[in-house]
Amino acid sequence: MKQQEREPLSKEKLRKYTRLHQKKQREREGLFLAEGLRTVTELCRNLPDNDMLVALLIRETQSDDSGFAHAFSGKVFSISDKECLQLAQTTTSQGVFGVFRQQPDPEPFGEGKKGASFIVVLDDVQDPGNVGTILRTAVWFGADGVICSGGTVDRYNAKTVRSSAGSIYAIPHYGVEHVADELNRLKALGYCIISASLEGKDFREFSFRPEKQVLVIGNEANGVSEQVQTLSDRLVRIPHAGKKARVESLNASVSAAILIERMVLD
Amino acid sequence: MKQQEREPLSKEKLRKYTRLHQKKQREREGLFLAEGLRTVTELCRNLPDNDMLVALLIRETQSDDSGFAHAFSGKVFSISDKECLQLAQTTTSQGVFGVFRQQPDPEPFGEGKKGASFIVVLDDVQDPGNVGTILRTAVWFGADGVICSGGTVDRYNAKTVRSSAGSIYAIPHYGVEHVADELNRLKALGYCIISASLEGKDFREFSFRPEKQVLVIGNEANGVSEQVQTLSDRLVRIPHAGKKARVESLNASVSAAILIERMVLD
Repeated sequence: MKQQEREPLSKEKLRKYTRLHQKKQREREGLFLAEGLRTVTELCRNLPDNDMLVALLIRETQSDDSGFAHAFSGKVFSISDKECLQLAQTTTSQGVFGVFRQQPDPEPFGEGKKGASFIVVLDDVQDPGNVGTILRTAVWFGADGVICSGGTVDRYNAKTVRSSAGSIYAIPHYGVEHVADELNRLKALGYCIISASLEGKDFREFSFRPEKQVLVIGNEANGVSEQVQTLSDRLVRIPHAGKKARVESLNASVSAAILIERMVLD
Repeated sequence: MKQQEREPLSKEKLRKYTRLHQKKQREREGLFLAEGLRTVTELCRNLPDNDMLVALLIRETQSDDSGFAHAFSGKVFSISDKECLQLAQTTTSQGVFGVFRQQPDPEPFGEGKKGASFIVVLDDVQDPGNVGTILRTAVWFGADGVICSGGTVDRYNAKTVRSSAGSIYAIPHYGVEHVADELNRLKALGYCIISASLEGKDFREFSFRPEKQVLVIGNEANGVSEQVQTLSDRLVRIPHAGKKARVESLNASVSAAILIERMVLD
């Protein structure tokens, strides 16, 4: 797109968008900031509605070779190198930012007519890269939704958004204050609660059923909380191979991926 | 451990260790720098030999509650807040650093008496987190070794070391300049070369054999190189579920984990 089609960004908007680095501000505004050409194009590809994109901010020296900004005329703003540094939280922003609306919360899973046959629950997963990667994996394997506990890192954190590869718009998700209450609600609706745990049974001892399954993935250091373990129908473990495990555990997003794949494809 | 048992770090050593941020310097010295209490303790737990630890650097205000530094007396140095900032590359260093020796290159896989039944090959994997996570997963599932192509990010990068969770010492690994030559060498020894590819066949159409398997994982954006695809015995794909995939692909370390798990546990 030609340079002259980009308006300069007002100081007021720059201030407003920079404040989206803070979770509190993201929640107040219902917006989030995405960085990097790849992340922004992935999000634009999955936009549920063009209104969900508020603004595209492109460094004045950056050409738009891919031409994806064409579809969003009137929302494309030019930013200087200095403004770019102010907006950047990651080191790979490449001078391309998008301001997007957060998805409205869907109705609680299991309540609607449509139902939901496979839900992934994050119980205090702290690493933004893990949360984004799990969202991406859940979308790939056709999960119906993701629920995040109060202690799970914000889904709209810049790093989460980047590692989710656009999937933040591709699956319904919401946060809950008390994850145990939410799991008990699902249990009462007939869902089978399966929690990943190093103390669980080898997953190959179970056969997963095709519907109403919930997989719970716990915190990177401490696993699934005791309260959630107690209410779970099953605790499953991914066995290591060889005589002795020389690492303590798998990465949380890796455990999630292996279990999701087994639950969906087996 | 008591404060007085920690010697101050000389300016010369500080300069030398700070230079380990650069790959060139790491290679010249045969050393690497690890950051964070968790990463350093994980590495210490897997130390093949106490000599592999060169120095533990602990911020003067930091107590050693876990007491793990006791075993390394004479190698523990105190650093100031300012020195700590100089050494830190990640934001989670917590004032604990370790300087370690790189593993000597093992003999090429397949050549020794012992043989190697399952090898993971990284073909230009660029994200340090992915390389570290794949090492960790390979160790968990008892792979015999990992080979990195010339374009793969350095295994001794601070982020790779952190995400490997100590597994850098738990599995033999080496780098090669020309990965296609290395794969052809393994092929000639009877190995089956299996490459992950979005254009491959559903992995459920294959039965994996128990020995002499090589899994190749490609670059995050471009996948396995054409040259490697051509020489591969099989191209395998992880199918998505549902009618339409709403994300383009899985994360590279997630793809690796799913395929490694299927190849080892099935």
